[in-house]
Amino acid sequence: MGNNPSGKVPVPTLERMATYLRYLLDLEQDHVETIASSDVEEQTGINAAQFRKDLSYFGEFGKPGVGYNVAELQNRITKILKIDREQHVVMIGAGNLGSALVGYPGLNEHHFNLVAVFDNNFAKIGRKLWELEILDISRLAEINAVLKARIGILAVPRSAAQDVTEQMIDAGIRAILNFAPTILRVPDDVVVRNVSFVQELAVLSYHLSTDMVFNEQG
Amino acid sequence: MGNNPSGKVPVPTLERMATYLRYLLDLEQDHVETIASSDVEEQTGINAAQFRKDLSYFGEFGKPGVGYNVAELQNRITKILKIDREQHVVMIGAGNLGSALVGYPGLNEHHFNLVAVFDNNFAKIGRKLWELEILDISRLAEINAVLKARIGILAVPRSAAQDVTEQMIDAGIRAILNFAPTILRVPDDVVVRNVSFVQELAVLSYHLSTDMVFNEQG
Repeated sequence: MGNNPSGKVPVPTLERMATYLRYLLDLEQDHVETIASSDVEEQTGINAAQFRKDLSYFGEFGKPGVGYNVAELQNRITKILKIDREQHVVMIGAGNLGSALVGYPGLNEHHFNLVAVFDNNFAKIGRKLWELEILDISRLAEINAVLKARIGILAVPRSAAQDVTEQMIDAGIRAILNFAPTILRVPDDVVVRNVSFVQELAVLSYHLSTDMVFNEQG
Repeated sequence: MGNNPSGKVPVPTLERMATYLRYLLDLEQDHVETIASSDVEEQTGINAAQFRKDLSYFGEFGKPGVGYNVAELQNRITKILKIDREQHVVMIGAGNLGSALVGYPGLNEHHFNLVAVFDNNFAKIGRKLWELEILDISRLAEINAVLKARIGILAVPRSAAQDVTEQMIDAGIRAILNFAPTILRVPDDVVVRNVSFVQELAVLSYHLSTDMVFNEQG
């Protein structure tokens, strides 16, 4: 595991690993074969020493004097993040945002297979969203016993978010991508990532009013 | 400016400030008036010392033995992030995601006023999206000379993202919330925040396969 005796990988390192991956995918489209850590710094804003330190959690990478092979690095990061094999994902909430996410082409590219969409609105249940039928949220546990998704995307209003989270956990979901603007209470064996458009805009808003921040892309 | 002689605020501190704000808004709904830093740790997963250190960039907060007044702290963070006054925002891209974001109620709550939507698809231009008419992207600079939005949301396909970014910058946009899965190249006086659903899912995917990460909500 490289220079990481405790075995713990900090969350910001994982986030940056995913950023490196996106950069590597850009490079692949541009047919770039080899990069130096200075290229990473120039294109992502993450400094070269940080890049090397992040990689060191996961072993040896790159060749001195040669640099990093783009395809190989991409391959290894994909394996590290465990996105090299298909994973079932369920979507909870078939509103505007949930519907847009169901149609988002990037998920499949990375083997996230959206297998079911749930809602509690009887006017929606039974209707089709893209190729998926909208299912009754009360059947989540029953249906997920078959689908065995461990990742769920939560796109419901704030007022419903905590109740629905508990239903998701009861149904075996262990990782939640939360779009509801609230802090979810979950047990220790469940992990949550929050996506908050307002939070992102607030950080931009701060930046606009000052240049007193370190300049690094999130 | 508290214990911050250089005047620089790290980006992760700003991100956490926005997380504290979300937590405080939850508390306000629950009619909680005062909190301790240990409450913050328990509810957000961000440890109490980190919370106090983050606040210290911006001055003195809380009273020893009493704690933090929820309304006051919320008010001050809102001012720190400069989201206490209305800001114009333009949306570029009227596809599924852009359309969903235009309808997202959270933006207005925080004084982000979405004033225009642009697209390059002639089939869409002139149609209404919620209450906004979809405008021709080629008119962005002309129209934004009047609207004076400095924040833009980019929700276009990866292949168009860099070109559109340059149009946004030419039109006076200085802060970009980027939903396209690519690294944008921007000059030093433009700030970008990337929202990547795939990146978030990849971090969740890693967590699912191991408990070897520090447990903190993003």
